[in-house]
Amino acid sequence: MAADVSAAEQRLFSFVGGAIGAWSVVEIRPVRGPVLADVARLEVVQETSPAMPGGEGWVLKGVTSNIRYATTIEQGELRSLQAGLGRSEATCAALIPIRKTSAWWDLPQDERRAIFEEQSRHTRIGLRYLPPVARRLHHCRDLGTAEPFDFLTWFEFAPDYAGAFDDLLAELRATTEWSFVEREVEVRLSR
Amino acid sequence: MAADVSAAEQRLFSFVGGAIGAWSVVEIRPVRGPVLADVARLEVVQETSPAMPGGEGWVLKGVTSNIRYATTIEQGELRSLQAGLGRSEATCAALIPIRKTSAWWDLPQDERRAIFEEQSRHTRIGLRYLPPVARRLHHCRDLGTAEPFDFLTWFEFAPDYAGAFDDLLAELRATTEWSFVEREVEVRLSR
Repeated sequence: MAADVSAAEQRLFSFVGGAIGAWSVVEIRPVRGPVLADVARLEVVQETSPAMPGGEGWVLKGVTSNIRYATTIEQGELRSLQAGLGRSEATCAALIPIRKTSAWWDLPQDERRAIFEEQSRHTRIGLRYLPPVARRLHHCRDLGTAEPFDFLTWFEFAPDYAGAFDDLLAELRATTEWSFVEREVEVRLSR
Repeated sequence: MAADVSAAEQRLFSFVGGAIGAWSVVEIRPVRGPVLADVARLEVVQETSPAMPGGEGWVLKGVTSNIRYATTIEQGELRSLQAGLGRSEATCAALIPIRKTSAWWDLPQDERRAIFEEQSRHTRIGLRYLPPVARRLHHCRDLGTAEPFDFLTWFEFAPDYAGAFDDLLAELRATTEWSFVEREVEVRLSR
């Protein structure tokens, strides 16, 4: 059972916003719904119960999980193009927590897939920005605890690519899928 | 935020096997992999941290979540046919915890869907046993804690239907999907 325990815990990440951490918070942009409290720094930790930061700090938790929408072909393209986190040149990062509406979650799988890709071209858009933008998706909705968001996406890229990253966000926010987003915050960081 | 907190917590259920509880354990059948410890009774609770039963008791946790594979048509058929839990005549129950292999979880969505329905006809098989068998599916894999199973399915039916319920389980276990099951236990109960 030891191997199972460690595998499950390795999928849980906590994003701790407060006074300390490896990443400096450049800006916290409200996109939709309530913004997060202003903090100076952010740390990404793999601890099941990280220390709660003092003051106005916050902890957002999420687990990496199985692919929910990508097909065999799409997953193959993603795997062949995507870069890993922690590249030395990728000194810019963004944490984008999102919450979708209950209308989204009540849809059957085929309708969510159709909105995700056939209408919104989510994967197609994302692929055009690989490999410069590295990405890891975390799921919060099924943690069993009261979480303020459904997803936390973490992005890393080089400073020269910041303008293109803004374009990526603008493209995704213009899709039909985004009409189901009821809360979104954009935390921009550097190290 | 109060509404969100209560909605998230209402999706989390704990199945507590021990000396007390509304359900009497008739039998715990090993199906594949390690069985669960023998207990006399079982209680289903909506508490985030239920008391751990003494002795050889156990607690299995899971959250109800969005539909992962069913299409619009399938979801419509399921909704029109399925009965609710707690019917007075449904004095038999079964708790079936299942863990799937990492090979299953590594598959893209379209391949999992194809095995689930096009090859294994999971929904088609289940529909034939509705409405006599009421069912609620709970997900454990993304709780962020080390859980021994990926799913907990809870079934309720009348005693006269126990033989048909055995047929349902036999049909599902003969599918291609079940070749991805690495642990399964069948807990049969009555009240």
